[in-house]
Amino acid sequence: WHHSKSSLLYRGGKVLVVPLEGSHWVNMDILVKALHSKGHSVSVLRASKSWYIKEESSYYNSITVSVTEGFDEEFVIKALSKLFSFLRSETSLLKFINFQFEMFSTMSSAHARVCEMITNMIEDKGLMKKLNESQFDLVLADPAWGAGAILAHYLQIPLVFNVRWTTNGEGHFDIAPSPLSYIPLTGSGFSDKMTFTERVKNILHYSLLKLQNNVFIKPQYQAICDKYFQTKLDFTELQQAADIWLMRVDFVFEFPRPTMPNVVYMGGFQCKPSNPLPQDLEVFVQSAGDHGIIIMSLGTFVGQLPKDVAADLTDEIAAAFAEMPQKVIWRHTGDKPATLGNNTLLVNWLPQNDLLGHPKVKAFVAHGGTNGVQEALYHGVPVVGLPLFFDQYDNLFRLQERGGAKIIPPHILDKTVFLQALQEVLHDPSYRMNMQRLSRLHKDQPMKPLDQALFWIEFVMRHKGAAHLRTESYKMPWYSYHSLDVIGFLAIMAFTAVFFTVFIVRCICCRMCLKRKMKRE
Amino acid sequence: WHHSKSSLLYRGGKVLVVPLEGSHWVNMDILVKALHSKGHSVSVLRASKSWYIKEESSYYNSITVSVTEGFDEEFVIKALSKLFSFLRSETSLLKFINFQFEMFSTMSSAHARVCEMITNMIEDKGLMKKLNESQFDLVLADPAWGAGAILAHYLQIPLVFNVRWTTNGEGHFDIAPSPLSYIPLTGSGFSDKMTFTERVKNILHYSLLKLQNNVFIKPQYQAICDKYFQTKLDFTELQQAADIWLMRVDFVFEFPRPTMPNVVYMGGFQCKPSNPLPQDLEVFVQSAGDHGIIIMSLGTFVGQLPKDVAADLTDEIAAAFAEMPQKVIWRHTGDKPATLGNNTLLVNWLPQNDLLGHPKVKAFVAHGGTNGVQEALYHGVPVVGLPLFFDQYDNLFRLQERGGAKIIPPHILDKTVFLQALQEVLHDPSYRMNMQRLSRLHKDQPMKPLDQALFWIEFVMRHKGAAHLRTESYKMPWYSYHSLDVIGFLAIMAFTAVFFTVFIVRCICCRMCLKRKMKRE
Repeated sequence: WHHSKSSLLYRGGKVLVVPLEGSHWVNMDILVKALHSKGHSVSVLRASKSWYIKEESSYYNSITVSVTEGFDEEFVIKALSKLFSFLRSETSLLKFINFQFEMFSTMSSAHARVCEMITNMIEDKGLMKKLNESQFDLVLADPAWGAGAILAHYLQIPLVFNVRWTTNGEGHFDIAPSPLSYIPLTGSGFSDKMTFTERVKNILHYSLLKLQNNVFIKPQYQAICDKYFQTKLDFTELQQAADIWLMRVDFVFEFPRPTMPNVVYMGGFQCKPSNPLPQDLEVFVQSAGDHGIIIMSLGTFVGQLPKDVAADLTDEIAAAFAEMPQKVIWRHTGDKPATLGNNTLLVNWLPQNDLLGHPKVKAFVAHGGTNGVQEALYHGVPVVGLPLFFDQYDNLFRLQERGGAKIIPPHILDKTVFLQALQEVLHDPSYRMNMQRLSRLHKDQPMKPLDQALFWIEFVMRHKGAAHLRTESYKMPWYSYHSLDVIGFLAIMAFTAVFFTVFIVRCICCRMCLKRKMKRE
Repeated sequence: WHHSKSSLLYRGGKVLVVPLEGSHWVNMDILVKALHSKGHSVSVLRASKSWYIKEESSYYNSITVSVTEGFDEEFVIKALSKLFSFLRSETSLLKFINFQFEMFSTMSSAHARVCEMITNMIEDKGLMKKLNESQFDLVLADPAWGAGAILAHYLQIPLVFNVRWTTNGEGHFDIAPSPLSYIPLTGSGFSDKMTFTERVKNILHYSLLKLQNNVFIKPQYQAICDKYFQTKLDFTELQQAADIWLMRVDFVFEFPRPTMPNVVYMGGFQCKPSNPLPQDLEVFVQSAGDHGIIIMSLGTFVGQLPKDVAADLTDEIAAAFAEMPQKVIWRHTGDKPATLGNNTLLVNWLPQNDLLGHPKVKAFVAHGGTNGVQEALYHGVPVVGLPLFFDQYDNLFRLQERGGAKIIPPHILDKTVFLQALQEVLHDPSYRMNMQRLSRLHKDQPMKPLDQALFWIEFVMRHKGAAHLRTESYKMPWYSYHSLDVIGFLAIMAFTAVFFTVFIVRCICCRMCLKRKMKRE
């Protein structure tokens, strides 16, 4: 509108990106590309042993910090394999707690690697001088690790988060009121309508997470704050001070919950209309006729289920596919399963977005990574979910709750169960109708999610922050924030008032009794 | 974007508007005109004794409900005059409480008039049949009174609010978590950073308001719900169930606070660029030279300060203006003040928006009505505030807190004070700079506020509601919402565990003591 002029005028901003490795980089990369194409200059901070973030790029400058250990493929795959074998076994409370602690010790060592990188960076006077002189307009960071908040504070420049998780858990919990009575914790598997027992579990889960964070993760970052900042600063407050939180969800996907003025929802920002398929794939798809196509992919990282713990599963899945009248395109990088049917095409890579947008595709077998789930939602394709790790169950659960997906937990997966789920999703029309409805809702926004994100990044550059959108309530002590001091004070006042009233009434009564006594005498 | 097609397709929606009288109608009217010009058909519900809402209109059909008493000018002016004489006197706590109760009894009788209208409407079988058959797509209502929520539920159609106040107070308090530790109550005069004493007062103020609402207002609407709805329904829940809340604020104006996914901010939706002034006014403005112009208006309702209680004030103001080197345009409908200077032009009406957008205008003397405050903010003109009633002090206070306005409380207003305030606002450049900064922030939005409002109204028509954006947490009992039942349960569990541990340890100890004793013996 009439301000578009000033918006357009803001070109040539300088953005310092502090990303996280792996799949997190995949989505940060989309913002980096978009910022570059809008005329901004982007510098990306990376570790010397980076796995996904390349040193050379046509659309960003990289700044490399040397580290002794990085997040390489080996580190991640070892952790994933451990997780998967846990998931396939029957769970008990003890096993679950043990597993949680094991996961947190893995997380803890991951954060230790990050902290080494931050320390190396700050100690490198030459690098810090260069960063200071670069006069960046803002830091764009993924708060699932703490480097962004620390660096932005060190350089005294505005901070924008590309966020779903912070070092403390789901991002909203850091910034918005989150009543645990109807906001399920990630990993709890609950919806926004919980029974009493579920609410008890949800609060216990929260306490456990809080404890683990305060023991394993926060102290590492706090130590850096204490060492390098002159004034005493709480690391959590540093994160809460971010100007804008670009959340990678929207409320078609996420359960409705309280939010804050500086939270911008860009869920599905990575989605786009599909392009035509390559010739050979199109021929295969058309050969399916009216039965249509099923596609299966377990995400970028998991080309195949871990061989040592899940080779049998691969055979069960292949055998189930073989019995379907549909044709199947399966991203599978391992050995060809013995039970593979003629209708199933194994591929090393598939154009997921283009397939999901194809009218012949009837169902999507997915692990529940954010990217796949959002693309399925965008194109309105129903999902059979095989959740493996992290937030995958929760992602799929949100689709299932709205009638667009069917989840198969890893420990009950076999041919019969898989076949049944596939047939249900294909033949019960409600799955497709629900996904199509979600797709319509998601697409019916005043502005594309990616444009929304870019607008607010540029807004922060134009106005050097967004302080007017941010409460500073997080600086209050917790008992003041919850008004416990005021309630205590009022309770004492009320108690005192009652006490004195009773005291005075008793005095008067006594005196009257005394008088009556004296009269009688 | 790619969905604009479906957006454009939605034309010819049928909207039933349930407005409130007076200044509330002034802003609802803007939405009505805009909906009409987008091709929707709008019906407006009005009382037979309506003051502001005309029966005949070129852009809406009116539906008239007969009432014995309406909100006429007399009712409002009598109430205002009472308020003003209170405001000019010195306050004490007792006086304040007495005044609050008097105000609430006035409010109560206003709501009684509304309830009479709702009852007459529901009892009019012909009218209800007609409304039912009209098949409206949504009800657009002002929730400062309860007719909209009741009617929407009765007709079973989606509900959108054009809101700043509900029957319970400030709109956010009904729908979003509102920690009283940093969210000041309207009328408290506090900011979002409160001292301990202020926080105590804020909570007391809240309790008083809650009490007064539950005694004077809610029961009237609840009686209607109990009489006309078969299932037991809580009136407050009816209001909380609205699909979209179009809030008449934004966070350039309002203090940052928690919000909800179904709250849309359209603060300043009534503002627009200025048009050239009429010839004679332009000549007068230009004659001011470099000193520029001051404009003064006390809003649509208050053409002059109440004669019986404030005739002296009018003279003081005129005398102060007479001493300024600026020229003054003053909307004043009363007698010409004796002290009027040559530099002051009295007018019955002024093109406020066009004047505020004029570069010669240096300051705006305003009563703090939402409309004037928003227009001043939009055009970046500093304000000298003379708050009279209702939310006017709070509106001005938000500008003052950000350095764009100076408030003169009614009880200290005289020539000297007024002159001093005028000179400060004119000569301290920070006032203008701050207002200009607010103006830039306000205008830097991805979408015009009015377009945003229209988008979400049409969204609700397209999707027959917006249930996915609305939590249903308000249906929980308050102790469950705040997890008090879970905390109680866990406390009992912990207590029992400690008790049994102590018990068992004591038993073991006793037995050991006994054994030792026996051994010794």
